[in-house]
Amino acid sequence: MSHAPDFQPKPRRRLTLEEYVDGVLAGDRVTLSRAITLLESARADHQELAQEIISRCLPSAGRSFRLGVTGVPGVGKSTFIEAFGKLALERGGFTGAPASRLAVLAIDPSSARTHGSILGDKTRMVELSRDERAFIRPSPAVDSLGGVARKTRETIILCEAAGYDTIFIETVGVGQSETAVHSMSDFFLLLMLSGAGDELQGIKRGIMEMADGLAITKADGDNAARARSAAIEYRTALHLFPPAASGQSVNVLTCSAQSGAGLEDLRASLAEFYQATRANGSFARRREEQARFWFYESLQDQLKRDFFADSAVQLRLAELEKSVRAGAVSPFQAAHQLIELYSRSKTK
Amino acid sequence: MSHAPDFQPKPRRRLTLEEYVDGVLAGDRVTLSRAITLLESARADHQELAQEIISRCLPSAGRSFRLGVTGVPGVGKSTFIEAFGKLALERGGFTGAPASRLAVLAIDPSSARTHGSILGDKTRMVELSRDERAFIRPSPAVDSLGGVARKTRETIILCEAAGYDTIFIETVGVGQSETAVHSMSDFFLLLMLSGAGDELQGIKRGIMEMADGLAITKADGDNAARARSAAIEYRTALHLFPPAASGQSVNVLTCSAQSGAGLEDLRASLAEFYQATRANGSFARRREEQARFWFYESLQDQLKRDFFADSAVQLRLAELEKSVRAGAVSPFQAAHQLIELYSRSKTK
Repeated sequence: MSHAPDFQPKPRRRLTLEEYVDGVLAGDRVTLSRAITLLESARADHQELAQEIISRCLPSAGRSFRLGVTGVPGVGKSTFIEAFGKLALERGGFTGAPASRLAVLAIDPSSARTHGSILGDKTRMVELSRDERAFIRPSPAVDSLGGVARKTRETIILCEAAGYDTIFIETVGVGQSETAVHSMSDFFLLLMLSGAGDELQGIKRGIMEMADGLAITKADGDNAARARSAAIEYRTALHLFPPAASGQSVNVLTCSAQSGAGLEDLRASLAEFYQATRANGSFARRREEQARFWFYESLQDQLKRDFFADSAVQLRLAELEKSVRAGAVSPFQAAHQLIELYSRSKTK
Repeated sequence: MSHAPDFQPKPRRRLTLEEYVDGVLAGDRVTLSRAITLLESARADHQELAQEIISRCLPSAGRSFRLGVTGVPGVGKSTFIEAFGKLALERGGFTGAPASRLAVLAIDPSSARTHGSILGDKTRMVELSRDERAFIRPSPAVDSLGGVARKTRETIILCEAAGYDTIFIETVGVGQSETAVHSMSDFFLLLMLSGAGDELQGIKRGIMEMADGLAITKADGDNAARARSAAIEYRTALHLFPPAASGQSVNVLTCSAQSGAGLEDLRASLAEFYQATRANGSFARRREEQARFWFYESLQDQLKRDFFADSAVQLRLAELEKSVRAGAVSPFQAAHQLIELYSRSKTK
């Protein structure tokens, strides 16, 4: 037995599968964190153990409301999540759980390049990070957007198994991750600014039509009136667009993380959405469809990865793509050539 | 030498590669038709010859304006195309070619099931089909949406090589083909009805944001005023949406195939779009991106086809998908299992 003084870090003993699973299911934050770290590891033995943990946690997962949050940089996502998260915890969340617990996750494709953002999410959400009912985890830094999305989706399972009934998934960065977040959300919330034209800066086409709801942020002080009229404009515009797959109409609200105005209305409208979609079956259908989507997406990812890792393919790819772009060879013929190369290199 | 009377069908001699290429490049309609039929054939020797023809035609292709046309059933796509096609021919098309020629193609995923629509496009476009400057070809009836899209895209090449400088590509059927048509169009035109709420019937979310322009159809008689106010509403709404990738703003016009009202304005706005995007480079960039898209799409299609044709995969797929949908197994684990099976069956 060591007699090291208390302030020395204790050596981290590797946990067993049972210890991981029991710890996660008991809602132990440290074990949950370690399980997620294991999941994010590139080591094969870590991956194997992590997948075992996920399998064991799966039956206890799923009982949550998953809120995707997106918006351009400057819209105030972090301050919104901090204020709205606190409110959700105070008011008991969305699912009617007796005492709500909140996990805040993020998908940041750029973190794959920078190996994690330097300013972690915890420094951006000071109050939430001190609340023991909240669990904040920055975006995993892995090799690709597909990889980042997968890790986040698996992290959701672990958090749910640990008793987190409210999951916020935030898009971070440059607008590639919206589809991924949309595909793991029960509700996809688009935050917008009310400044003339500003609201369009950086939002890609198609994002707006993915949204289950819009919230105009920073609706306080001099900006409150502008936010209200922006909301009216968007409401009118959205009437001209097809209804969401959920069958629910798309609400446009205004809110302020600073003054708190509008946050309770937003919470109530999300709770209502949860009740209505649970009742009409579209909540379950959407989750089923999402699981199916990730299944086929993952198959495709793996097939592509094997293909593009092939050395014969790599040798020819750049040149063929160039010819295709220049219109010198038809895209189908170029693809055919490359597939032939691949087949030959496989059977060799 | 046979002395069969003239009214007996002449035996169709198989053309040589040279004859096909020369005929297409000379703009001979019969040869063009036969080349397309060859392209649509499932026979391996036909495919090989067709691909040779396409390779040889490719340097002469591309000099056209490709207009994608979509809209819900009932919006009047065929009558619109008939009236607008006639006008385009009269007014000299969009590219400034001295004498315009028009090809009308269609993508109908449902034709894959029914093996071609019973009512061909020619019966729907009586006047155009009698005009020798117009070439109308129904949707190819092949095995999959991917297949239909590919054949149509290759048909565009043949038509362009045959001197057709105006290409209309129509979506037909149930709203799966919009993305495919969008990905082969220089301009993607969405036809809309002005009836209150009707305009949303059947339009999938996301389609509106793909559009380079909107035309409210049937703007005649009692309906003209309603169409105008619908156009104003859409114009206002579209201001709130991100700009199109072309950099051009999205125009909303009204028109009537019956009275001809608005068709010349639409033609002029398309000709202007063509000039502006040619000048600012976005026309060429879009085509390059489309070629690249179809290249990777085609690679992916082929990889998937090989995978799902594998008997070991087929045996397990349905069961695994069911477990994924039910949440009993994680999508990633299920995919991993299936990929393992596939690898083992490949190396066996």
